[in-house]
Amino acid sequence: MPKGYLAAGVHCGMKKDGKPDLAMVVSEKPAAVAGVYTKNIVKGHSLTRTSRLVTQFGSCRGVLINSVSANACVGPSGETDADRVASEAARVVGALPEEILTCSTGVIGKRLQVDKMISGIAELSRTLSADEASAHNAMRAIMTTDLVPKEASAILEIDGKTVIISAMAKGSGMIHPDLATLIGIITTDAEIDAVCLDNLLRQAVKHTINRVSVDGDTSVCDTILMMANGMSGLEIRPETQAYSLFAQALEGVVKDLARMIAADGEGATKRIEVFVEGAPTEEDALRIVRSVCRSPLFKTAIFGEDANWGRVLTAAGYSGARFDPDRTDIYFGSLQVCKNGCALDFDESEAKRILSGKDILIRIQLNSGSYSDRMWTCDFSYDYVKINGSYRS
Amino acid sequence: MPKGYLAAGVHCGMKKDGKPDLAMVVSEKPAAVAGVYTKNIVKGHSLTRTSRLVTQFGSCRGVLINSVSANACVGPSGETDADRVASEAARVVGALPEEILTCSTGVIGKRLQVDKMISGIAELSRTLSADEASAHNAMRAIMTTDLVPKEASAILEIDGKTVIISAMAKGSGMIHPDLATLIGIITTDAEIDAVCLDNLLRQAVKHTINRVSVDGDTSVCDTILMMANGMSGLEIRPETQAYSLFAQALEGVVKDLARMIAADGEGATKRIEVFVEGAPTEEDALRIVRSVCRSPLFKTAIFGEDANWGRVLTAAGYSGARFDPDRTDIYFGSLQVCKNGCALDFDESEAKRILSGKDILIRIQLNSGSYSDRMWTCDFSYDYVKINGSYRS
Repeated sequence: MPKGYLAAGVHCGMKKDGKPDLAMVVSEKPAAVAGVYTKNIVKGHSLTRTSRLVTQFGSCRGVLINSVSANACVGPSGETDADRVASEAARVVGALPEEILTCSTGVIGKRLQVDKMISGIAELSRTLSADEASAHNAMRAIMTTDLVPKEASAILEIDGKTVIISAMAKGSGMIHPDLATLIGIITTDAEIDAVCLDNLLRQAVKHTINRVSVDGDTSVCDTILMMANGMSGLEIRPETQAYSLFAQALEGVVKDLARMIAADGEGATKRIEVFVEGAPTEEDALRIVRSVCRSPLFKTAIFGEDANWGRVLTAAGYSGARFDPDRTDIYFGSLQVCKNGCALDFDESEAKRILSGKDILIRIQLNSGSYSDRMWTCDFSYDYVKINGSYRS
Repeated sequence: MPKGYLAAGVHCGMKKDGKPDLAMVVSEKPAAVAGVYTKNIVKGHSLTRTSRLVTQFGSCRGVLINSVSANACVGPSGETDADRVASEAARVVGALPEEILTCSTGVIGKRLQVDKMISGIAELSRTLSADEASAHNAMRAIMTTDLVPKEASAILEIDGKTVIISAMAKGSGMIHPDLATLIGIITTDAEIDAVCLDNLLRQAVKHTINRVSVDGDTSVCDTILMMANGMSGLEIRPETQAYSLFAQALEGVVKDLARMIAADGEGATKRIEVFVEGAPTEEDALRIVRSVCRSPLFKTAIFGEDANWGRVLTAAGYSGARFDPDRTDIYFGSLQVCKNGCALDFDESEAKRILSGKDILIRIQLNSGSYSDRMWTCDFSYDYVKINGSYRS
């Protein structure tokens, strides 16, 4: 972890299977903070509280995250519950209540289990530590249907100083832009003011986290928070070389998370990257990648390892993007399956070989301009249905 | 069937399982015709030919439909293949080639099997008949993954004359507005000019066929054709009582088809009706029903008989519609599960009982205006994944 951060994750009795369900990430001194949030007009109460505090103060000491209740759609108690657990977390780390942000993920319409969380916070305070194992425990405690923890980091040497960026994220279902479609916590020991941090974070998510779709559903709790506590002694200011290097590293870290999220989408057996090029505008390129990545017919075909490119062209065709189908080429991996909007007599066994892999690249060349975009998703399997047929119980 | 129509359906060797795959519906004398088509910018060649002829002539003698190849994305041969089979069908029924329209549904990127279809047309010509069994054979020959034939009809007595409206439709997957999302053939023996028929058809599909979603994918072949041959002797003209009666009956017939399509969506175990009321505008109401009906999370929850209303509110929230979540009520059947955007402590066993039914009504009261809309869809099951993981093979 970057200098000056502590983390912990515990089981406080909320998850029935005994897995960790409550996490905290704390900075030893106040850190600048920035956040990006879901664009769903229904918003969880923890999110509402957090975004208000981030806007108001631009700094914080830490974040408390639970992975059982989304703390959404429960009425006024949602904010007071979040206040209560934040106050308790603030007390144990010696911060003000408004310096502790809250993230919640899980079932909508269920109140926070405040008593269990308060006893969990006591345990968190005993185990908070700067070691990697604690960060990993925190990561595991924010998982819901995730099968795999998602962590990424970068170490930069700038102006003779070492700066670390560290990130964790959960997210497996209800994943679709905008915005973040998950819970993500990014920490760095660089010194960055809140405005600059906000810009860096927004830029970093744009073509990464905002290009992941699992099921087309945008959740009500999506939040990514980034903290910068300055303890490396290196300051990042706009329009410097250090800024560029940092921005690039940050985007790399967030992109790693994005790709991990796609691979661990609910029920996923394959990660799919849909890449569109030759679009007349940026918007048209985005419309197409979003539409293809959202198509259940396309995603079930990939699950079945069936090179059904007609479904790719169909999804592009109803996306609302402007393009000429008769100039469109489609490739599955390196294999061209459609030229100028027409079927090619491609080698089915080669297609099968390509689709039997774990990472599938679909490339759509529109030959109608110079814009491109890409999005990651996963296939649609029996297990997606299984996982989501009984999520509340 | 209405007076003066003949139909037939045969197996001409295209479907591997020996099921009927080629159908024809013919009017003994030229009939006015109207059509509504997919809004996907990728369009099948049979559709392109048909829509051009409908616009140009406004009348036809019949329709030839195959259910194996979509005749889409195959290049210039797509139109010439459609011309060839239409010419042959025209020859056997004594019509001009441009009087026979074509519809195709099935795999994209596969050419029509012209030779098999031509031998099938010979057989069709031998079996064309006005009896109900022949209409039913035609219906069965246009099915793809449909499990159930979809037929509906109405008999009207107007001004002492009997008029019949008869309709058949196929559609099970790749179903989403706009437009028709299926192949439908409607026949009537009323006398209606082409312009009036076009208005009647557009009006009839708007809140029926255009309110069905199975998977959010809008196909490239969707076509509904309506023929009116006048052989009942009753003329339908705008702004008459007969017009109102006819329009109402027509909408009823098409609505029956729409509901059958939802119930027979690929893999469906339940039909779902999502009804929104109290919306500030018509557009907001439509956005919400579309978004909820498209949500895989909502649809898998219904498959699992899980009253996860949070997913309903979530899908409404990201639909782009304007509404106040804090004034929103949600009902599953007669059971209210959410009031003013907040969870209610509802009876889970009653919810389970309601969701164990075959027809599920979800009602969303926005309390923000006077507009309403409804859409039909189905649940999302293992079988959807199974059916679509290997459709081409």
